Amino acid sequence: MAKPEKGAGSDPGKVSSGPGSARKAWAGEHDAPVDAMAEQFTASIGFDQRLADVDIRGSLAHAEMLGHCGIISQEDAASLRRGLENLRAAVARGEIEWDLSAEDIHMNVERKLYERIGEVAGRLHTARSRNDQVATDTRLWLRDQIDATLMEICALQQTLIQLAEEHLDAILPGYTHTQHAQPVLLAHHLLAYFWMLDRDRERLMECRTRVNTLPLGSGALAGTPHPIDRHFVAERLGFNRVAENSMDAVSDRDFAIEAVFGASMVMTHLSRLCGELVLWQSREFSFIMMDDSMTTGSSIMPQKKNPDVAELTRGKAGRVYGDLMALLTVMKALPLTYNSDMQEDKERLFDAVDTERVCLRVVNQLLRTTRFRTEKMENAIRGDFSTATDLADWLTARCGLPFREAHGVVRDLVRLVEQTGKTLEELRSEDLQTVSLLLDDDALHRIQPRASVAARVSFGGTAPDLVTGQLDLAKERLEQSWQSLPGRPEYSGR
Amino acid sequence: MAKPEKGAGSDPGKVSSGPGSARKAWAGEHDAPVDAMAEQFTASIGFDQRLADVDIRGSLAHAEMLGHCGIISQEDAASLRRGLENLRAAVARGEIEWDLSAEDIHMNVERKLYERIGEVAGRLHTARSRNDQVATDTRLWLRDQIDATLMEICALQQTLIQLAEEHLDAILPGYTHTQHAQPVLLAHHLLAYFWMLDRDRERLMECRTRVNTLPLGSGALAGTPHPIDRHFVAERLGFNRVAENSMDAVSDRDFAIEAVFGASMVMTHLSRLCGELVLWQSREFSFIMMDDSMTTGSSIMPQKKNPDVAELTRGKAGRVYGDLMALLTVMKALPLTYNSDMQEDKERLFDAVDTERVCLRVVNQLLRTTRFRTEKMENAIRGDFSTATDLADWLTARCGLPFREAHGVVRDLVRLVEQTGKTLEELRSEDLQTVSLLLDDDALHRIQPRASVAARVSFGGTAPDLVTGQLDLAKERLEQSWQSLPGRPEYSGR
Amino acid sequence: MAKPEKGAGSDPGKVSSGPGSARKAWAGEHDAPVDAMAEQFTASIGFDQRLADVDIRGSLAHAEMLGHCGIISQEDAASLRRGLENLRAAVARGEIEWDLSAEDIHMNVERKLYERIGEVAGRLHTARSRNDQVATDTRLWLRDQIDATLMEICALQQTLIQLAEEHLDAILPGYTHTQHAQPVLLAHHLLAYFWMLDRDRERLMECRTRVNTLPLGSGALAGTPHPIDRHFVAERLGFNRVAENSMDAVSDRDFAIEAVFGASMVMTHLSRLCGELVLWQSREFSFIMMDDSMTTGSSIMPQKKNPDVAELTRGKAGRVYGDLMALLTVMKALPLTYNSDMQEDKERLFDAVDTERVCLRVVNQLLRTTRFRTEKMENAIRGDFSTATDLADWLTARCGLPFREAHGVVRDLVRLVEQTGKTLEELRSEDLQTVSLLLDDDALHRIQPRASVAARVSFGGTAPDLVTGQLDLAKERLEQSWQSLPGRPEYSGR
Amino acid sequence: MAKPEKGAGSDPGKVSSGPGSARKAWAGEHDAPVDAMAEQFTASIGFDQRLADVDIRGSLAHAEMLGHCGIISQEDAASLRRGLENLRAAVARGEIEWDLSAEDIHMNVERKLYERIGEVAGRLHTARSRNDQVATDTRLWLRDQIDATLMEICALQQTLIQLAEEHLDAILPGYTHTQHAQPVLLAHHLLAYFWMLDRDRERLMECRTRVNTLPLGSGALAGTPHPIDRHFVAERLGFNRVAENSMDAVSDRDFAIEAVFGASMVMTHLSRLCGELVLWQSREFSFIMMDDSMTTGSSIMPQKKNPDVAELTRGKAGRVYGDLMALLTVMKALPLTYNSDMQEDKERLFDAVDTERVCLRVVNQLLRTTRFRTEKMENAIRGDFSTATDLADWLTARCGLPFREAHGVVRDLVRLVEQTGKTLEELRSEDLQTVSLLLDDDALHRIQPRASVAARVSFGGTAPDLVTGQLDLAKERLEQSWQSLPGRPEYSGR
Repeated sequence: MAKPEKGAGSDPGKVSSGPGSARKAWAGEHDAPVDAMAEQFTASIGFDQRLADVDIRGSLAHAEMLGHCGIISQEDAASLRRGLENLRAAVARGEIEWDLSAEDIHMNVERKLYERIGEVAGRLHTARSRNDQVATDTRLWLRDQIDATLMEICALQQTLIQLAEEHLDAILPGYTHTQHAQPVLLAHHLLAYFWMLDRDRERLMECRTRVNTLPLGSGALAGTPHPIDRHFVAERLGFNRVAENSMDAVSDRDFAIEAVFGASMVMTHLSRLCGELVLWQSREFSFIMMDDSMTTGSSIMPQKKNPDVAELTRGKAGRVYGDLMALLTVMKALPLTYNSDMQEDKERLFDAVDTERVCLRVVNQLLRTTRFRTEKMENAIRGDFSTATDLADWLTARCGLPFREAHGVVRDLVRLVEQTGKTLEELRSEDLQTVSLLLDDDALHRIQPRASVAARVSFGGTAPDLVTGQLDLAKERLEQSWQSLPGRPEYSGR
Repeated sequence: MAKPEKGAGSDPGKVSSGPGSARKAWAGEHDAPVDAMAEQFTASIGFDQRLADVDIRGSLAHAEMLGHCGIISQEDAASLRRGLENLRAAVARGEIEWDLSAEDIHMNVERKLYERIGEVAGRLHTARSRNDQVATDTRLWLRDQIDATLMEICALQQTLIQLAEEHLDAILPGYTHTQHAQPVLLAHHLLAYFWMLDRDRERLMECRTRVNTLPLGSGALAGTPHPIDRHFVAERLGFNRVAENSMDAVSDRDFAIEAVFGASMVMTHLSRLCGELVLWQSREFSFIMMDDSMTTGSSIMPQKKNPDVAELTRGKAGRVYGDLMALLTVMKALPLTYNSDMQEDKERLFDAVDTERVCLRVVNQLLRTTRFRTEKMENAIRGDFSTATDLADWLTARCGLPFREAHGVVRDLVRLVEQTGKTLEELRSEDLQTVSLLLDDDALHRIQPRASVAARVSFGGTAPDLVTGQLDLAKERLEQSWQSLPGRPEYSGR
Repeated sequence: MAKPEKGAGSDPGKVSSGPGSARKAWAGEHDAPVDAMAEQFTASIGFDQRLADVDIRGSLAHAEMLGHCGIISQEDAASLRRGLENLRAAVARGEIEWDLSAEDIHMNVERKLYERIGEVAGRLHTARSRNDQVATDTRLWLRDQIDATLMEICALQQTLIQLAEEHLDAILPGYTHTQHAQPVLLAHHLLAYFWMLDRDRERLMECRTRVNTLPLGSGALAGTPHPIDRHFVAERLGFNRVAENSMDAVSDRDFAIEAVFGASMVMTHLSRLCGELVLWQSREFSFIMMDDSMTTGSSIMPQKKNPDVAELTRGKAGRVYGDLMALLTVMKALPLTYNSDMQEDKERLFDAVDTERVCLRVVNQLLRTTRFRTEKMENAIRGDFSTATDLADWLTARCGLPFREAHGVVRDLVRLVEQTGKTLEELRSEDLQTVSLLLDDDALHRIQPRASVAARVSFGGTAPDLVTGQLDLAKERLEQSWQSLPGRPEYSGR
Repeated sequence: MAKPEKGAGSDPGKVSSGPGSARKAWAGEHDAPVDAMAEQFTASIGFDQRLADVDIRGSLAHAEMLGHCGIISQEDAASLRRGLENLRAAVARGEIEWDLSAEDIHMNVERKLYERIGEVAGRLHTARSRNDQVATDTRLWLRDQIDATLMEICALQQTLIQLAEEHLDAILPGYTHTQHAQPVLLAHHLLAYFWMLDRDRERLMECRTRVNTLPLGSGALAGTPHPIDRHFVAERLGFNRVAENSMDAVSDRDFAIEAVFGASMVMTHLSRLCGELVLWQSREFSFIMMDDSMTTGSSIMPQKKNPDVAELTRGKAGRVYGDLMALLTVMKALPLTYNSDMQEDKERLFDAVDTERVCLRVVNQLLRTTRFRTEKMENAIRGDFSTATDLADWLTARCGLPFREAHGVVRDLVRLVEQTGKTLEELRSEDLQTVSLLLDDDALHRIQPRASVAARVSFGGTAPDLVTGQLDLAKERLEQSWQSLPGRPEYSGR
């Protein structure tokens, strides 16, 4: 089962202290495991083993190119290909044990390859350095992750559209400052998140273009004297661009930081959505009922359903912000070109991308299993005076009253309501007429929440017809997004 | 002259304590200035007055639309236009005193407009809320700033190209881990920064597209019942898109966060460049001599030139990262729609964008006034063995030696050099032949730094011909960038 | 009135472009204002003028010491004192105009002193460098701010105690996961914040000790050859320690970072409190009614009161976190000793400390003017089953039922309640007996919220007697804190 | 061997897509593993298994207390003790397999206990909730870690003292702005880090006091009705304080954030030290030669030794800053009391504390194995004019020259040196006399670096006698620190 997380890439171990004086104890305690400590500290195999498959894919393309360009013989190229494919399959079957003493995934793969095909394995390192190799691996890995993440974003957008369609009649209070402001359609509220996610998708697609640049062939920093063909490798691996400057190529981690920023924005949006869901699940709001599979409850406190999944997702926003801050700070003021500080990029990148994806999935599931208590939502509007501004607007627009005078009329009406203990919605024509003769049946209509909603007909507004139009717009957008998703099965473009 | 920065948007004032008992002192001390304190705390006019011009431009378009759509009369629309244009000119001349009691720039503008045109000023607020107004203003302001920033990025890229062209012959040690690795062209090193900045430019252009979306017409959160034409306003103000969902429109600050992220990446790159310049300006490196205008010095310590500008820019990376963290955290888990927390966006956005621009400018100036001591750079390569790997490569590629054997030959040679106290470059044919008969005059040639540089002919490598090609590529790219700059005088597209 | 915030310490100005070719435009645009740009960029007088008073205080002590040690003559020492005191008074009266060309506050003070007393002003710089001077000034300033902040913390703690005492009878739902868990006393809830703030106070007192260390006398980095007496200066300025190592002294900014961390924790606590107040002010909770002076409202939506002050404080937590991140990142990996990057410390320190103080004040005022609607709180418990666990506990403890069996009985009871549509509190003995004969009148008593509260008698629990005891403890703690406050009028210790 | 890091606490799995239409693919893809997904997402056993031992220790004390207070029978108490001790031993032997379906370490321990002692295991949960239990476990774990970290800090301080003592004669350039400023003793430079670490130690000790507060007995949030004795448990577990407020106790994570802040400061200091070591290891500085065990090298580039350990430590500062930012953001604006967001505290706390400890260890080892090339350091001062200010000081102090005149004399001298191509140190009396007759042999002496160093006699300065005194002070401080270390073998106080 699960092993504890590898904190700093290595277990700090125990501080032992000898039998001698205290001072001597710490003076001498580190003497024994010198090399082991540094080895463990600098080793990355504990986390970069996730790159095994992309590392081998990169090597396959490199080996093919070396043969293609005549840098190694066709026989050697074929041996390398067979060995790598054999190893790749073994990795996929989970048969490979990685070795800490081989430090990182690249050395581990090399060693395993050597075990399979012998000396010729060494040819693979012609015209390649670990500096350009690790950058290539990370980009390949990230590209796959972005593709999978894009699908999750689209899936969540799809769920929002479905929920909006299923609840086209529902209205609820629209809030500013967590105060009732104006009634809105639930569908309108849900679609607000659709558009947030759409910006996330857009950003991620743009980020993908920059991720999809090939550093391989840049050598340690200056290029290589071998007559390699970088465009051949790029074509084989699906990169849409070849890095123009070798020194930039091996010291660039912008692509990783940008991906983590993209994840931070996704998490910002999910934290807002989940924050609302937590609120709506509260006894005081009771706007939703989450499914038992998404909460923890109590058999003797039947209405208590802790919204763990929503809370945890909200909390994980902080985690991903931390990943972003870590990466930015690591890169700050580093001189060209490669520095070992940059080894710190991977764990934080992995963490942010994993968190982003899993949160998109669980929030999708959370929404899909949640019951929206639309009757509670509509009831919440009763008596909240949130349509009083509609009445003032009506007096201005319809009766030509100056705004201040209209405002005065409504204020008088509100006072009346407060005195009688009624709600605005319960007033009858007679009640209104005691305040102003202008307030006819149409006025009475305008203080009904649904009339208020229906009136907001400006583009982007919450009137049902407009929301239906926006739903169509959203569906169209999603269809286009899906068609251009690099990760979907039939996708072929790059 | 300069006033002290307004920390939290208001001076926290003094803690007074009365003559009574200590306990009573703090119990009572805040009694007097109650309302003033909250007013000062929530007022934003101290910083959002920077939005005065864009606020008025937004109002001009809004007023024109109200008239165009018949929501207000043509006469009122004309009055509003005259009043606003008059006010705008007064603001530009610096004649307007803003008033703290009017809380924010929107209320201040309203009040000033009222002073000019009387009651009709109130018509301007038809079909508009402060929630969609402030979002519109911020986007307009930011779009202008992005355009100006894009020009600064291009200007700095241009300087890098010029410096690369002026120093096409210069070589220096290429570093990994701050250790000499392989010689490279100075032009190659400088162009690495060109490509970093090019990604910054690309990101900023993409960010601009998302910034350039019109929220106006979303009302407080739900749209407006007035028959407005949002696309008319968008066209007048140069927005290329109208926000599709009113609730998203008033609660979205993604555009600001994304701009601050873009600034963070720019600052990361500038901090790397400036970190190198500080190093190169050190007595130990002595690769450059900064101009007196960019340093502080000592007349009696002639070589001491403190690289203040470079250090300060490096430090300001932290500042902008902090701005990014602030904005992300402010938005985390906020429920829809507008919340006052979001008022915190502006100072951090202003700070990040200002810092980014001024740093781009001063670093440009710093580079343009710096003397590159290319003789020191070339001398630094002497005796650093950084071409030994070239020799091993040569033995493999030319003589067909297995890599291990080639490595052994070079290791023997290095030992010889160490024993004789010479450098690799000083060796003669006879010296080489004592180690291996394979090492002929061509080998001798290959351990010269310039030969090493010339040999790195892979695409993106540092060989002079390739760097010349990359310079052409960079110039072409810059020309295209310039042609598409939204901010340049003759630019018309949006 | 208020000037716009100085973003990056200087206004980035406008990008002008000449009439010539585009390329030429940016190539040449920066030529003119070369020196001015760098001067403005590196100048700190725009923000460090806040240090004017502490700078002069530091100089007064330094001058006295120079005379005391015979390094300058008594006459010169007296002249310096008179000049500095004269200048200090002028600063206090707001008569001094600072000059950008004099770069920072130290040079400005020097220049103003020269205008007053002539050449002898130069003597002040004997045995002093700007490196140790600026560190001294910042520490003096911060110590004053900490003292004022400590008073604000105590004042807020005092308010919490008063509110707890005033509402000793009030009960409300205690929440976990924003779900009703168990009823608690409002006083208990409020006191939770007392203890958070008490940790803040403790941390700040400890931070103050480290702030209160004198760097002056460390020179530029290595000490000074003059026979100075640093302990004399420390005594005069109230420092309780003299920095032991001159290189550490001029490159140490730990004290500033620690103060900003302390502010971050304060803001975390205030954001939690304000987040709750926003919730409680919502229509759905209605647990409190904020005062009009602390909200913005609508005369026609009487119950809408936007909790601006609470929201803004919640948002400002992000701002201070950003300040912390900025300072940490600025200091990361800087070599010894002073570097210009460190000039970035002040604006962020000022901002964090100002924000912390003003937020403590306004939250105090917010709480003191808020009406707690205790009837709403108590009503909220009705029907929430939050005492069902009490009943299970009672069955275990009183009747010796195994926990599982007790749980089963309560579950049956809850089902009964759900079927009948009653609440737990409304059940009568007969109802209970239908479920289990064990459920007697005492059981009936135990499901009353107040009985549940009264039963939680473990130390730290919410039973009224215990809360009264904790109130006494809190009052005692606060009294001690107040007695040890360095900033209160009669305080003399350091 | 090593497993890949568990990113978000669970593997996000693969996005599968069925053979049907694309739309259908994502609509349906998550249907199957519903519950499993949420279970995996919310489970913490993957990382909180590190708390196994402290969880059991906490339970042992709790069980003993339950028996002691008569809440459970002595027999049950004894059974629980035996079961827990048996389990604890099994954990220590690594025999226990944790189970994902049991969610967290607390449930896992409960289940294992049940397997050992049957139904009585359930008694352990009397008067305890997971909310107070997890807070207790985390504090116990952290206290142990702090104790171990304190020992590492002292060990590193001890190494700095040893190195200072071993190199008491060595001088090197003292830097400001990475420029030579004044010569200093290497011992003085090293001791600057001693004092930084001493502040870290002090902060950590203070943090420990706040960590060492017992939350157990606070129940879910409100206390417990059982007659427990929290002080008994505190005494058994070595806590020096019992949390005064149960609601604060279960929702407080200040202690974790404060510990991560302490780690951030440690990492800031280590990053500064390591940044310098990287610089000093460069060919240009050559001030040190790191041991092969701490670097990666090249057999054919003999002087290339990549300072991996130093670089990686420098980079890890960013990682820990990220952890800090994550924790602060997680806690921002959370309502009372426990929320699932808080589950995010552990991984970041573990990571920061692990990183801090392992970095302290490896940097200690790095320093202990590094050779300081003191001849290179001393040579670096030659010709750097860094003693010119000493000469000006001498002219002022000894000859009574006004500062400006003294400055003029030295400027003339410097010009002379520049013309003749000599260094200051090489000048003879005759040379000096050509500039000013005041410059006698004593003046000649004062421009020698060692004389400059010797002259800096102010407290805290770099004169050898003073540094010796500071060494004594440091040793005394360290001895006291060691005596008060809670973690050392013979330590008994708490």
